[in-house]
Amino acid sequence: MAEFDLIERYFTFEYDFSEDSKDTSANSPSAESSKKPHVVKGIGDDCAIFEIPSKYQLVTSTDTLVDGVHFFSDLQPELIAHKALAANVSDLAAMGARPLAFTLSISLPDVSEEWLEGFSTGIKRASETFNIPLVGGDTTQGPLNINITAYGTVKKGRLLERDKAQLGDDIWVTGHLGEAAAALELNQKALENKETLSTSEQVLWDALTKPKPPLKFARKLTKLSSCGLDISDGLAADVGHILKKSRCGATLNVELLPVSDALKTVVGSEQAPQYALNGGDDYQLCFTAPQNNRDKINKLAARQGVKASRIGTITDNGLKVLLHGKPFKSERKSWQHFNSDN
Amino acid sequence: MAEFDLIERYFTFEYDFSEDSKDTSANSPSAESSKKPHVVKGIGDDCAIFEIPSKYQLVTSTDTLVDGVHFFSDLQPELIAHKALAANVSDLAAMGARPLAFTLSISLPDVSEEWLEGFSTGIKRASETFNIPLVGGDTTQGPLNINITAYGTVKKGRLLERDKAQLGDDIWVTGHLGEAAAALELNQKALENKETLSTSEQVLWDALTKPKPPLKFARKLTKLSSCGLDISDGLAADVGHILKKSRCGATLNVELLPVSDALKTVVGSEQAPQYALNGGDDYQLCFTAPQNNRDKINKLAARQGVKASRIGTITDNGLKVLLHGKPFKSERKSWQHFNSDN
Repeated sequence: MAEFDLIERYFTFEYDFSEDSKDTSANSPSAESSKKPHVVKGIGDDCAIFEIPSKYQLVTSTDTLVDGVHFFSDLQPELIAHKALAANVSDLAAMGARPLAFTLSISLPDVSEEWLEGFSTGIKRASETFNIPLVGGDTTQGPLNINITAYGTVKKGRLLERDKAQLGDDIWVTGHLGEAAAALELNQKALENKETLSTSEQVLWDALTKPKPPLKFARKLTKLSSCGLDISDGLAADVGHILKKSRCGATLNVELLPVSDALKTVVGSEQAPQYALNGGDDYQLCFTAPQNNRDKINKLAARQGVKASRIGTITDNGLKVLLHGKPFKSERKSWQHFNSDN
Repeated sequence: MAEFDLIERYFTFEYDFSEDSKDTSANSPSAESSKKPHVVKGIGDDCAIFEIPSKYQLVTSTDTLVDGVHFFSDLQPELIAHKALAANVSDLAAMGARPLAFTLSISLPDVSEEWLEGFSTGIKRASETFNIPLVGGDTTQGPLNINITAYGTVKKGRLLERDKAQLGDDIWVTGHLGEAAAALELNQKALENKETLSTSEQVLWDALTKPKPPLKFARKLTKLSSCGLDISDGLAADVGHILKKSRCGATLNVELLPVSDALKTVVGSEQAPQYALNGGDDYQLCFTAPQNNRDKINKLAARQGVKASRIGTITDNGLKVLLHGKPFKSERKSWQHFNSDN
């Protein structure tokens, strides 16, 4: 199958965007919406074209998933597709951006129609979930490698940055942490499907394979916070990124970490915070905000159906991790590429 | 080496942009230039941020180079880097866009400092050549795979599209064609370096490894043409893309194809047009324009030091390839991914 046929067959979608899309205008560059960002041209030319009016800024993020590193190729292609898009959309959430479009570059060792059907279904479904159309990309022959570049928009000055934490800010996270990392250890069991997963294990497995970054919450959060990122390397490491960029310190209170019953059931109550602290792959949000905004943040979270937990405070120097006021010993390492031990 | 260290050491550049950058504002979002597109935030957060004022549009293109398909990993890393960026910048030229920035996602099997030094040098040098700063990306462990997304801007309505060819338009190309395809056949010889390349062979080798898309010419061309693309699959195939999108036909005159003396010396005068017609990897421009604009196009080309050749005409239906008025038999195939014969 030639590249053009492949794109036409598997990567040209008629989208059925949800209600939410009515206020995005991503796919409806009508006369009325011409003052909103939109896609002028998608698949089919040398480039995609976007119109970004002057009160908006374009944000963009790129992420690669590699076979054997970020997933195993015998994982269902629908799930690989979801994960690839979710990881990128999560970077948009991390800035408080509204999704505009994405491009997909995929290297495939060969053309398995069954695999492509599944991957295509997964990409279409995920793009509808996250309300973001595919507008271009590249297919090449080679070891399986999936690169996505996601485009989003923010109104000028309304975004979450890593370098904006202030002394005394609360530190917050969304969702439950540590589930994806624990699920990685179930990977083999799930793939081989020798045993059925328990209900708790299934919760973890879904957290790993179907992450749902809190996009809309993040967007609205930009009225209450200016500092945030997504938790992909692991909470402690990601908080570290904020501290480095904002030149400050933090105290994290381990007893406040959002740890699910499912995680406690599978790895035990004592181990669960270890996963939450250093697990990685959560694709939840970590952000800081003035203490004055506590009520508003709790209300926003409730309205959006998002769990938001206050887990610590920005200090002037160093990262302290405390369990009921005493130093907590971290037993796991956060994710690092190119270290010899992973 | 951790990912962050690797990015810091090899992919964080102090740029020394050339004269031309003074009118791009890509790196100088000063108060005066705030009405021009610019990079608000580069490497170091979850996303890069661009400001695109309302009279501009953002164009973007993404391309992947895979080891063993687009290059061989024993090729000098400086050359791999140049090629990867040139292929993407060529898509910007194909739209008549001005380079704004690019992101780089690279999968590496391991960290060879020597390789990374070379690659880093090549990327920095190429970004200075093409006047386009690196603003973000991703490094992962995996089989060598290089993905670049390039961002450019056009003034609204001032761009080259594939679907804008008009009946009676002249068809033009820039540069010399076919050299890169012929150089591929020298690849082994060059790599093994058992023999020194002849002067003519060196010309072809440079065309393959150091393509220089005619960016500035393309930008100015948007006053004289609305239809164009870059020649990457091979002239005949790429003209075919225009015909399909513009729903028209074309006559190409083989005797008018720009074939260099170097190509004729290496492959012979009879074979040279075959390479020019179907070679691929040229990263030159093919465009159509009204006959009235001939003089202006020739003058623009002369001013920019670009070779521009008029090679055919847009007709109402079908692609005719003629040599001195008689049908020309094409002996080579253009490049297609996923065909079993390449």
